[in-house]
Amino acid sequence: MSTRTEREELLVARAYLSAVAEPPAPALTEFVAARGPRRAAEEIKRGGVPPPLADVVEARREHVDGAALLDAGRRVGARLVVPEDPDWPGELAECLVGARTVGLAGMAEPVALWVRGSAPPDVALANAVAVVGARAASGYGEHVAAELAHGVARSGFTVVSGAAYGIDGAAHRGALAAGGSTVAFLACGVDVDYPAGHGRLLKVIAQQGLVASEHPPGTPPRKHRFLVRNRLIAAAGQATVVVEAGARSGAGNTAHTADALGKPVLAVPGPVTSKTSVGCHDLVRTGTAVLATGAHDVLELLQPLGQVDAAPATDTRRRTDALHPHARRVHDALSGCDGSGVDALARECGLPLRTVRALLPELELSGLAVRTEAGWSATT
Amino acid sequence: MSTRTEREELLVARAYLSAVAEPPAPALTEFVAARGPRRAAEEIKRGGVPPPLADVVEARREHVDGAALLDAGRRVGARLVVPEDPDWPGELAECLVGARTVGLAGMAEPVALWVRGSAPPDVALANAVAVVGARAASGYGEHVAAELAHGVARSGFTVVSGAAYGIDGAAHRGALAAGGSTVAFLACGVDVDYPAGHGRLLKVIAQQGLVASEHPPGTPPRKHRFLVRNRLIAAAGQATVVVEAGARSGAGNTAHTADALGKPVLAVPGPVTSKTSVGCHDLVRTGTAVLATGAHDVLELLQPLGQVDAAPATDTRRRTDALHPHARRVHDALSGCDGSGVDALARECGLPLRTVRALLPELELSGLAVRTEAGWSATT
Repeated sequence: MSTRTEREELLVARAYLSAVAEPPAPALTEFVAARGPRRAAEEIKRGGVPPPLADVVEARREHVDGAALLDAGRRVGARLVVPEDPDWPGELAECLVGARTVGLAGMAEPVALWVRGSAPPDVALANAVAVVGARAASGYGEHVAAELAHGVARSGFTVVSGAAYGIDGAAHRGALAAGGSTVAFLACGVDVDYPAGHGRLLKVIAQQGLVASEHPPGTPPRKHRFLVRNRLIAAAGQATVVVEAGARSGAGNTAHTADALGKPVLAVPGPVTSKTSVGCHDLVRTGTAVLATGAHDVLELLQPLGQVDAAPATDTRRRTDALHPHARRVHDALSGCDGSGVDALARECGLPLRTVRALLPELELSGLAVRTEAGWSATT
Repeated sequence: MSTRTEREELLVARAYLSAVAEPPAPALTEFVAARGPRRAAEEIKRGGVPPPLADVVEARREHVDGAALLDAGRRVGARLVVPEDPDWPGELAECLVGARTVGLAGMAEPVALWVRGSAPPDVALANAVAVVGARAASGYGEHVAAELAHGVARSGFTVVSGAAYGIDGAAHRGALAAGGSTVAFLACGVDVDYPAGHGRLLKVIAQQGLVASEHPPGTPPRKHRFLVRNRLIAAAGQATVVVEAGARSGAGNTAHTADALGKPVLAVPGPVTSKTSVGCHDLVRTGTAVLATGAHDVLELLQPLGQVDAAPATDTRRRTDALHPHARRVHDALSGCDGSGVDALARECGLPLRTVRALLPELELSGLAVRTEAGWSATT
């Protein structure tokens, strides 16, 4: 049973580490990378680790109990996923390790992830698109978010978002309606129903996908935790789509984080008279985001050429499109009158008589012109 | 009176040339540039000019009467402006001469311009912005076009458009409402009220700006003439703004022409659910246009730095913005409870006790925290 004990010790250590510092804590993750999780947890608990780590863990190091957190998690249906697990979402974590290594401000990988739901995190996040946006969204924004999420989910991508009211909720719902996978990253414990009105939605997300957080169960949401959580959403998506965002918004923060992480950002435009589209328009204008009008634009960016179904474009061809410009000019001139002589037509078009004489039978054959007693006329 | 006669002869020749070939006619404008207008008109009328010019003028050369056209123009209040005039809009023409010279398809300068209105064309078009868009515009599109045109007109720019229903009409009206200048380029004679419902609008445009066309009075509108006319709008504007455009539209044609002429193009986004914004979104996505949300974006592009008033941005600052991130984290933690001890606050924030002890008086002084018998609380 030594293996079982070792695994339990590892989980206790990672649970302790997940709670002992407020994320993101580069000093902590560097220390864990250097010492390994169990020795790191022991040394921190014992005290005397060097600064800056000492400051980061000072307030909580004697108060956190890893085993108690694991028990509390189990009671609320949450489990701890750790980097040593085969289903650890390695790409998400590596992306943030890379950002920490180059010194990107506020970037560090999570030391563990608390999850509700049975989906293996590595599978759920293997092909993911982040869809985020304003809480105070418009009906237009929620409609577009749901449609877009539905489209990318139906194509096999997991929709990652933050479970907030407005765009986030619509994105999760769109993915669920498509029978697709969706993951909600929370700024609180995975057992905390926040926002309160999304308790049922979170339950369904856990059934069909995952609810995840780097905070231990019971952690309340705090303003700064939303910004910190946003980096997980940005890192989890192969691309981030902003559907509606005000001039200053959490979604804009997620977009800029995704951009800083080297991931493509897309933004959905809206009426320029709508406050909730200001952030999207800013992202496009400044070149941070490319403009997206639906799932098709997202898929085209992420999938190799030829894998995406053609856009549902309306057929805008006209019967006269195939005509030579001169024939089209003759047809235009015919449309304006009730029967023309060939000479008058040539003058009207500014084309040589022989050209008009040659073109009229061609138009007649195409069913675009007809000769009557009064002269030539257009049929359409 | 020889000067007067010479001038009249020049006008008769240019009037003849304006009607003898359907524009754009590079072969004609090259010939005029080489021979001068009077000799060019004489040789064409006499017959025997070499191809390709021969084909272009064949149908009309014996039927056009320059003097009669001038008389007809005068009867309907139209005059002919020619390159030899001091008020000839040289920049517009030079832009198209350049395009013809490099062989850009369908590009040639007008041989003359028929105008209604007393404004000198060179002055009216010295600082101009083209504002174009869909005929079947939405209420949203017309509103935005009018506001945008109003804004650029108030800043001293002439609004150039095509007098069509929808966006064009709204753009002219917006400029007129601002007491600004506006120029309508028509695809028919300047005496033809097209579209019929814009007769009154065209009259007001002529009073406050100009109605202009390269076609002689009485020329009916034809489909191909709209595309040909669009190059004058694109060449006249220092920039072209597309407000609403369907998937395939005349406004899109004007935008691509402006782009080909090396002029900046802007497009106003709209709901992705709106068919009339599809063309605008395509222009932005393909990089042909930059995204514009109002007059401010147009002015910023055209005016030297510092000349544009700041955008009417809403103040999005919060009282806590000036705080150090640690202080903001303490404030966040305070907001969640009704009185906290300093130890609990430090654990909640994950900050060292001494840091929290130092920050609380700072928050109190800023009026963001208050100490009561129960402990510390947030005031906002």
